Amino acid sequence: MPRWQPNPREQLTRAALSLFAERGYENTTVVNIVERAGLGKTTFFRYFRDKREVLFGADSPVDAAGEIAAAPAGTSPLEAVAAALDAAGAQAFTPDRRETLALRQSVIDTNPELQEREALKSIGLAAAMTDALRQRGFPDLTSSVAAELGTLTLRIAFDRWIAAANTADFATLARQVLSEVRAAAAQ
Amino acid sequence: MPRWQPNPREQLTRAALSLFAERGYENTTVVNIVERAGLGKTTFFRYFRDKREVLFGADSPVDAAGEIAAAPAGTSPLEAVAAALDAAGAQAFTPDRRETLALRQSVIDTNPELQEREALKSIGLAAAMTDALRQRGFPDLTSSVAAELGTLTLRIAFDRWIAAANTADFATLARQVLSEVRAAAAQ
Repeated sequence: MPRWQPNPREQLTRAALSLFAERGYENTTVVNIVERAGLGKTTFFRYFRDKREVLFGADSPVDAAGEIAAAPAGTSPLEAVAAALDAAGAQAFTPDRRETLALRQSVIDTNPELQEREALKSIGLAAAMTDALRQRGFPDLTSSVAAELGTLTLRIAFDRWIAAANTADFATLARQVLSEVRAAAAQ
Repeated sequence: MPRWQPNPREQLTRAALSLFAERGYENTTVVNIVERAGLGKTTFFRYFRDKREVLFGADSPVDAAGEIAAAPAGTSPLEAVAAALDAAGAQAFTPDRRETLALRQSVIDTNPELQEREALKSIGLAAAMTDALRQRGFPDLTSSVAAELGTLTLRIAFDRWIAAANTADFATLARQVLSEVRAAAAQ
């Protein structure tokens, strides 16, 4: 019975992340990555333009704006944001991806340029959620506040989710953080 | 009676901003800027490393973290943030700087790279305010929420302040936006 093999993209991602963690992002080359994965350079460049794309290349598997747009009529701004967080838990932050995402985050945390890139992604997400809320007819300021609180909730819930001692699933953590964030905002 | 002359830094900044607005940031060189200002290249490089530093070089004249640290004991997180916004109005967003700052913003709004730089400054500000609130003893999550809402308030109040029809001063606008933001967050 043949052993299950992850697809090449996944193999390359795992090889890259373990090398980034072992010897540092700066000290890892594409050649190192393909050697570790047992694949060729051509395969690497079929999936990624460079090593940074291993960390940032994949389109977000969650369409937060689409989830907000699809929420039932009458949903409040923060409830629409919560629906997007639920989708993140169901589609992106699944138990089988937790270890890989934790490793990815530990690599990003060591490098200011990668941290900037991650921060800009977060800003892009907040802008997309703000637009989606506006399109539901909420005022600009209301939309911005809900999107910023949602982005902050995502960040905090993600940190808790990848923390070593955590046993809860992402959606549960996100709901809990969102209620803490609402309480803090109301103080 | 000699006409009042702004200092060289100010002269170079005005020349650069008007050129950026006229012909675009990308199409303006340091040589263009010094010619417009009637000064030499040596003078330019005494103040700025490159043309981007004309937009981003100056340290923020407001020490938001310092203002938060200096708020009286018993001040709530959002009130401490409001004190920092008041200081911004008194020290940085003064009526005499409004036109220059509006012009600077219009230049940034045309260029994605400059927008990224501005966004990262905003993230840095939120992080500094979060730390300052933590150091006052507030929980991490409470500190993050207040800092994010404060940064959002600053952004919205700044947009209103530079809007053509505005006649109110920055601190008044910021207080008004902060109360709208609190109301939206409590919804």
